Amino acid sequence: MNLLIVGTVAFDALETPFGKTDKIVGGAATYASLAASYFARKTGIVSVVGDDFPAAFIKELNQHGISTEGLQIKNGEKSFFWSGRYHNDMNTRDTLETQLNVLANFNPIVPESGKNADFLLLGNLMPQVQKQVLEQMITRPKMVVMDTMNFWMDTQWDALMEVIPMVDVLSINDEEARQMSKEYSLRKAAKKILQMGIKYLIIKKGEHGALLFNKAGEVFFAPALPLEEVFDPTGAGDTFAGGFIGYLARTGDVSFDNMKRAIIHGSAMASFTVEKFGTQRIINLEKREIDDRVKEFFKLVSFSIS
Amino acid sequence: MNLLIVGTVAFDALETPFGKTDKIVGGAATYASLAASYFARKTGIVSVVGDDFPAAFIKELNQHGISTEGLQIKNGEKSFFWSGRYHNDMNTRDTLETQLNVLANFNPIVPESGKNADFLLLGNLMPQVQKQVLEQMITRPKMVVMDTMNFWMDTQWDALMEVIPMVDVLSINDEEARQMSKEYSLRKAAKKILQMGIKYLIIKKGEHGALLFNKAGEVFFAPALPLEEVFDPTGAGDTFAGGFIGYLARTGDVSFDNMKRAIIHGSAMASFTVEKFGTQRIINLEKREIDDRVKEFFKLVSFSIS
Repeated sequence: MNLLIVGTVAFDALETPFGKTDKIVGGAATYASLAASYFARKTGIVSVVGDDFPAAFIKELNQHGISTEGLQIKNGEKSFFWSGRYHNDMNTRDTLETQLNVLANFNPIVPESGKNADFLLLGNLMPQVQKQVLEQMITRPKMVVMDTMNFWMDTQWDALMEVIPMVDVLSINDEEARQMSKEYSLRKAAKKILQMGIKYLIIKKGEHGALLFNKAGEVFFAPALPLEEVFDPTGAGDTFAGGFIGYLARTGDVSFDNMKRAIIHGSAMASFTVEKFGTQRIINLEKREIDDRVKEFFKLVSFSIS
Repeated sequence: MNLLIVGTVAFDALETPFGKTDKIVGGAATYASLAASYFARKTGIVSVVGDDFPAAFIKELNQHGISTEGLQIKNGEKSFFWSGRYHNDMNTRDTLETQLNVLANFNPIVPESGKNADFLLLGNLMPQVQKQVLEQMITRPKMVVMDTMNFWMDTQWDALMEVIPMVDVLSINDEEARQMSKEYSLRKAAKKILQMGIKYLIIKKGEHGALLFNKAGEVFFAPALPLEEVFDPTGAGDTFAGGFIGYLARTGDVSFDNMKRAIIHGSAMASFTVEKFGTQRIINLEKREIDDRVKEFFKLVSFSIS
């Protein structure tokens, strides 16, 4: 396996100003692996679901070339469930309900085929669980990307600080970067967070794009595409991360210049996700659509100096 | 005169989380003309001040090659004064005091030398005043850029709609674009606003950069430089507009590609303004500093597709 993705596979119920859904399939590993599948070959997920999870969707993942060998199915248990309502600005949301279910005692098991993966994405999970995955790897991946959230900063700071030096790239949003660093300026925040032991920091700014920082003080900015309509932002960050690491896994190149391209590809994938509910838009993309979208990003920020 | 800039020349008193100022010189035409002076030759301003305005500052403008022939000085009257306090996030502010003073009855007079200017910047003023200036021009400028604000949308909508079709470029912020179009999506907002009769729309997003739209549906995004510290955002938008039109005036080229470069130059100038209080940072810039900053913008968003 070339790319291993650890994260939730779950149910979401969403309300946006444009409509609402019943339980639909969501979860960080779902979005990330689907996004990555358009680039990387031999992608596998490590996750857990209950016996309520539709076999048809697992088949769908497999048809995208995603190995579900590491997906545990717990009989008699229910899948993780989250329900939320977006405000009119689509940037803020309220959680209506969270049912941890199978996630409460998630013990990730990396299948043999994944223990030598060159690329590893640690989706947002309890820091200890992320660490457990890292410890199962036989060879240190070429690149480990990690997501986390404010909740773990509030409740598991020490555990988080233990995992962070073990990864290469941390991917968080602007508010999380500010909370983590206690700095308002994202440039200052990045400097502080990089000192916590990672090589690269990605700060996601939602509809305002994303920033990539390295330890040498270099910074790259990837815009978000101004869209006619953001229909449902759920999964955008996970799609971004999946597209990012999927592109790196396909090219095998972890230079800063290639990371820039990877961020653009991640942003392009995320721009599709928000166009429809759930995974609808990214489940059947054509290569041509992705190439065109990447070109749109290129055109959006291209200028010559004189 | 090649570039004519109409707008306030005034006093500001500012409070930021980093400190406060007594009355210092501010005003849209001040920031815009100083920014433009690094590019355009033969720039003039049309504005009004009271006899409390320091002659030394007028001399300073002149030393930047800015003609103050069109600057009326009203004896026995006081200059426009605004005082405000920025919140911790530096993105929002409260107005503490506004004294219109000489601005209450401002009757702009374009000097003979300015009536054939190729480039015209109509800073944020009552729409009728902006129109009065346009009507004094003998030849239609190559490009007219106009700023406005939510206050005129609330109180002078019809007058605003009369001026807008007379200009080429409208420059407003994201909230104003949303208010003006009643659309949340900036892409949709831009479409509607362009239908009101302008050729180009610039939407300023503060620390999130700026978007340039044309009628053909093209869009360009200029990022803001992630800065270590934003010390005082006052005048950033005016500096941006001045740098933008100043660059156009210097090059004489109003193609969409050159407008992209102009936006980057405007953004670069604005990134200096916010580093110190008032006009301190932009009053003594060296060409080399500006060139370096423009290169930083270029580097910030540069990537190759494959």
